[in-house]
Amino acid sequence: MFIRKQLFRRVAIVGAGFMGASLGLAIKKHGLAKEVIGIGRHETSLREATDVGAIDEGTLDLKKGVQGADLIMLATPVSGILETLDILGKDFRRGGVIVTDVGSTKAAIVDKAEKVLHHSVLFVGSHPLVGSEKKGPACASDKLYEGAACIMTPTQKTNRLARDKIKYFWGQLGCQVKMMEPHEHDEALAYVSHLPHLSAFAIIRAIPDQFLEHAAQGLKDTTRVAASDPEVWRDIALSNPKHVLKSLDEMVRAIAVMRKAIVSKDREALAEFFRQAKARRERIEKSHGG
Amino acid sequence: MFIRKQLFRRVAIVGAGFMGASLGLAIKKHGLAKEVIGIGRHETSLREATDVGAIDEGTLDLKKGVQGADLIMLATPVSGILETLDILGKDFRRGGVIVTDVGSTKAAIVDKAEKVLHHSVLFVGSHPLVGSEKKGPACASDKLYEGAACIMTPTQKTNRLARDKIKYFWGQLGCQVKMMEPHEHDEALAYVSHLPHLSAFAIIRAIPDQFLEHAAQGLKDTTRVAASDPEVWRDIALSNPKHVLKSLDEMVRAIAVMRKAIVSKDREALAEFFRQAKARRERIEKSHGG
Repeated sequence: MFIRKQLFRRVAIVGAGFMGASLGLAIKKHGLAKEVIGIGRHETSLREATDVGAIDEGTLDLKKGVQGADLIMLATPVSGILETLDILGKDFRRGGVIVTDVGSTKAAIVDKAEKVLHHSVLFVGSHPLVGSEKKGPACASDKLYEGAACIMTPTQKTNRLARDKIKYFWGQLGCQVKMMEPHEHDEALAYVSHLPHLSAFAIIRAIPDQFLEHAAQGLKDTTRVAASDPEVWRDIALSNPKHVLKSLDEMVRAIAVMRKAIVSKDREALAEFFRQAKARRERIEKSHGG
Repeated sequence: MFIRKQLFRRVAIVGAGFMGASLGLAIKKHGLAKEVIGIGRHETSLREATDVGAIDEGTLDLKKGVQGADLIMLATPVSGILETLDILGKDFRRGGVIVTDVGSTKAAIVDKAEKVLHHSVLFVGSHPLVGSEKKGPACASDKLYEGAACIMTPTQKTNRLARDKIKYFWGQLGCQVKMMEPHEHDEALAYVSHLPHLSAFAIIRAIPDQFLEHAAQGLKDTTRVAASDPEVWRDIALSNPKHVLKSLDEMVRAIAVMRKAIVSKDREALAEFFRQAKARRERIEKSHGG
């Protein structure tokens, strides 16, 4: 008889929504834990997560939920992750337990974790790039993380074994893991993720009501991400203000360059602007990413 | 024996690229013309268009190509349409021939056509909303126009029979035809088409080189249209400057609203901004459009 030893005995996932439930399904599919506990704020989503097989058991009680866990996965929007860290910081200690997260910004989360968590609790930040407009455990997929990039943000304070184990964990789920400094992550993501999302919200805002009915495919593609969760994006913008504001300023500057070329009827300058953008867009298509 | 009378005897398509060749294929599929002539600037694309069956014959000579046509379809980028109208205006006259186009802006084209064409030539403006990043007759599809919105922009000077025949023509290709004033069209399209395209170019421009490799799906979706033809978009922006500039200004204003909420850490204002955008985005999904 062959007994496979799982990577973790008990994984507690805080947040049983689309991201958390997909994580539960993927953990089970790849046999990475003996048991998966879901911790949520609403009984209905915990029940849904149980029904789809993403968690073995659900609870509304954080303290109870993390008992006996050797991996705690924080899978809520950023403000929820920060709150959970504060709560865990108060009296949670358990030698060797690893805590990681799926938050879209990293500096605020890593700073908070390193400040409030007991030194026996091993934190390392993660950000799997799997953004989606979907919501709720009913849409969860065990393939969500397959092929996605996952950026981990260990610091000098990060325990090496915890880092390596979490790196292995994401790799098992099919992610391509990259390591970055938390601030470097937040700066890069401000441009390649936060800016396009905020721009999509702004484009929609800029269109007068009476013209919405003429929306063509270009608008639909460009603004698909504006259907994303408002609270998630509120949290992201407010937890990464410096880089997000800088990226918005760069956007306004780029618009000003086009504006000037249009006002001065500069055919060559405008075509060159578009040609350069097209060439850079084609580079992106070849890059990896979630 | 049943002989079906075609809508047109000979259609001359000026511009044998993706749009023009797809038009040729669709005209043939629906039996709307006895003969389709392609007029282009490069022998290779005319040959490609002939090879895929989009045109019966190709020529580099505009005057020769439009001889005997009862429909002339202008299917080049906007600046090419304006040039062709100027050339036709010089000495082309033929009682009852209809001229229409597929240009993405309408006021400049309609004004030019009404100014330069001989009064025996019946012009009506069209804009099928089928924008695509594809290029060249090799990508042409006889289904391109199926289900797309097509905005026609007749004016008080437009011949009614020509308008009705062209409306029927687009309907036969599977388009949903709407009528708008040329300026009304240009204002609406500035917001729902030109703004998202120019924003996509601007987003790409705003991203520092070193971060491009971290592009995730959100960025890819949002900027897919930045792979569009630079000359096409140069023409569109420069032939619709007033409304395009206004839409860019509205975009900058929307960014300023977000900026202010982020700077002042106004959680509620920011979430409300995103909620409103999300609700409007969901309205778009239900609308028609190419």
